Amino acid sequence: MDKRPIGVFDSGLGGITAVRELKKIMPNENIIYFGDTSRVPYGTRSKQTIRKYSAQDINFLLQNDVKMLVAACGTVSANIQKEVVDKLPVHFTGVLKPAVDAACKATKNKRIGIIATPATIKTRAYGKEIKKIIPDTEIIANACPMFVPLIENGYVDKDCQVTRIIANEYLQPIIEQKVDTLILGCTHYPIIKEMIQEIVSQDTTLIDPGVEVANYVKKYLTENNMLNNSDKHGYCHFYVSDNIESFEAHAGVFLDENISGDVDFVDIDKY
Amino acid sequence: MDKRPIGVFDSGLGGITAVRELKKIMPNENIIYFGDTSRVPYGTRSKQTIRKYSAQDINFLLQNDVKMLVAACGTVSANIQKEVVDKLPVHFTGVLKPAVDAACKATKNKRIGIIATPATIKTRAYGKEIKKIIPDTEIIANACPMFVPLIENGYVDKDCQVTRIIANEYLQPIIEQKVDTLILGCTHYPIIKEMIQEIVSQDTTLIDPGVEVANYVKKYLTENNMLNNSDKHGYCHFYVSDNIESFEAHAGVFLDENISGDVDFVDIDKY
Repeated sequence: MDKRPIGVFDSGLGGITAVRELKKIMPNENIIYFGDTSRVPYGTRSKQTIRKYSAQDINFLLQNDVKMLVAACGTVSANIQKEVVDKLPVHFTGVLKPAVDAACKATKNKRIGIIATPATIKTRAYGKEIKKIIPDTEIIANACPMFVPLIENGYVDKDCQVTRIIANEYLQPIIEQKVDTLILGCTHYPIIKEMIQEIVSQDTTLIDPGVEVANYVKKYLTENNMLNNSDKHGYCHFYVSDNIESFEAHAGVFLDENISGDVDFVDIDKY
Repeated sequence: MDKRPIGVFDSGLGGITAVRELKKIMPNENIIYFGDTSRVPYGTRSKQTIRKYSAQDINFLLQNDVKMLVAACGTVSANIQKEVVDKLPVHFTGVLKPAVDAACKATKNKRIGIIATPATIKTRAYGKEIKKIIPDTEIIANACPMFVPLIENGYVDKDCQVTRIIANEYLQPIIEQKVDTLILGCTHYPIIKEMIQEIVSQDTTLIDPGVEVANYVKKYLTENNMLNNSDKHGYCHFYVSDNIESFEAHAGVFLDENISGDVDFVDIDKY
C-alpha cells in the first residue's frame, strides 16, 4: 500500500490520454501530471534539447514525492538515456516498452508499423526494442510532424478533411507494406484513433500507448504492493509551465469527466 | 557610419523573411540573427511566457554588440511592453509599427484585415496602433494557429491542398468584411503570400512585415548616420537555441542564396 501519487509527464497535453487510461483502471490512484506547455512540442527538437527538458520535468515530479514516474510522451520515451533512468530514485517507465510488448503479442505476420514524431522516428528506438523480442520483424516507420499541431488545435473530428488528407499521406507507406499491427508512438495520436483505424482498415491492430502504459503501471504497482487501496477516488493535480488559461484553452480535447483536477503553474526552468 | 551588426530575432525561423528583405535593400549590413528553435512557436503561448523569452533573446543579442534590435516576430512585437523597449540601450523596432504605417497608407476604404498568431490577435495591438492613425478604421482580425506549423513543415506550395483549405477557413471572415488591405501579422506568412493573395483577390493590398520593417530599419539607420558604408557584402550569422542540424532541416523554406551564413548554437536559458 502506497498512497503517494504517480508522477506523469509529457511535452504538453497529449499525455492526458495516458492519465485517462490510468484513472479508468485505477480510479483510486492519485496523479500528479506535468505538461511542459511553455516548450511543447518536443517531437520536432533535437535529442539534446529533449533530454535537457525531460531531466527538468523529472526533477519537478521527484520533488512532489511521487512513487513512480511515467513519461507519457513517445518522444521522451524514445530519447531518454538508460544511464539516466537507472539512476532515478523511483521506478520509471516510458510508453515505448509497454507499446512494443503489446505489438509483439498482437502481430501475426511480423510486420509492425510505427507512427510517431520526427524526433522519435529518428532514434529507431521502437524498431530496436521490437527486434529484441522478434528479431525478424519487418518495421515500417513514418514520422508525422503535423499530427501534434493539428490535434492541439482541435482538428480532431473523424471527418475533418484536413487531418484526413494528412493522415492518408502519412499512413500510405504503412498500408502499402501490409502491416497487421500499428503502434501509435505518440500519446496525442489516440485522439484521432478512429480516423486512423478507418484509413488503415479494421483488420489492423492499433496499439494505444496510453492503454498499454496504464496496464504496465498497474502490473508494476500490484507486484510491488504499491497500489493505493484507499476507497476514495484519487485526485489529479495538473501542473503546466505556461499559464493556466492556456491549459484551459487547449485541454478540452484531452480531458474527460473522470479526470478533472486542480491546475497550477510551475516555472520549469528552475528545475 | 556604424559597422556593428543589426540584431534580428524571432521565435524560430520565420524572421528570416525579414533578413531577406534587409539584405535586399542593404546588402552591406552585417546581421546577427537569433531563432529560438528550442522553444518555437511563441504564438500559442501566454504573454508572460512570450515576454520572458523575448527578454532572453534581447539579452543575447545585446551581448553581441548590435547597433539596433529588430523583433522579426509578430508575436513578440505585439506582446513586448513599452517600459521594456524604453530601457533598451539601442534602438528597437518590432514589425508591428512599420506594418501598421504601411497599411494606413494603403487603405482607401478604411477596412483593414489582420491575420496573425493567437497570442498576437489576443493583444489587439495592431488594431490599437491603426486607430491612433485613422481612428474610424474598421479592423477585422483573425488568428491563424495552423499557419506556423504548416509553413515550418514545408506545406508551402501554392497548390498545397491542406494549406489552401485552412487558409480559406482563416481568410473567409476577412473576405466577407471587404477589407482592401490585409496585414500579414507574422513573419512566417510571407512564405505563403501568393496563395493568400489568390484567396483574398488581387485587389487586396497585402502588407508584408519583412518588407516594411526592412524599409523602416534603412530609414532609421540613414537618418542617424548609422549605415554600414563598407563596400563589402555584409555577413549573416545565425544563432539557434536547438541544435544546428534541426536548423538545417527546417531553414530551407526560408533561406535564399543571398543570406547564407554561419550557424551556431546558443544556450538561451543562460541569458
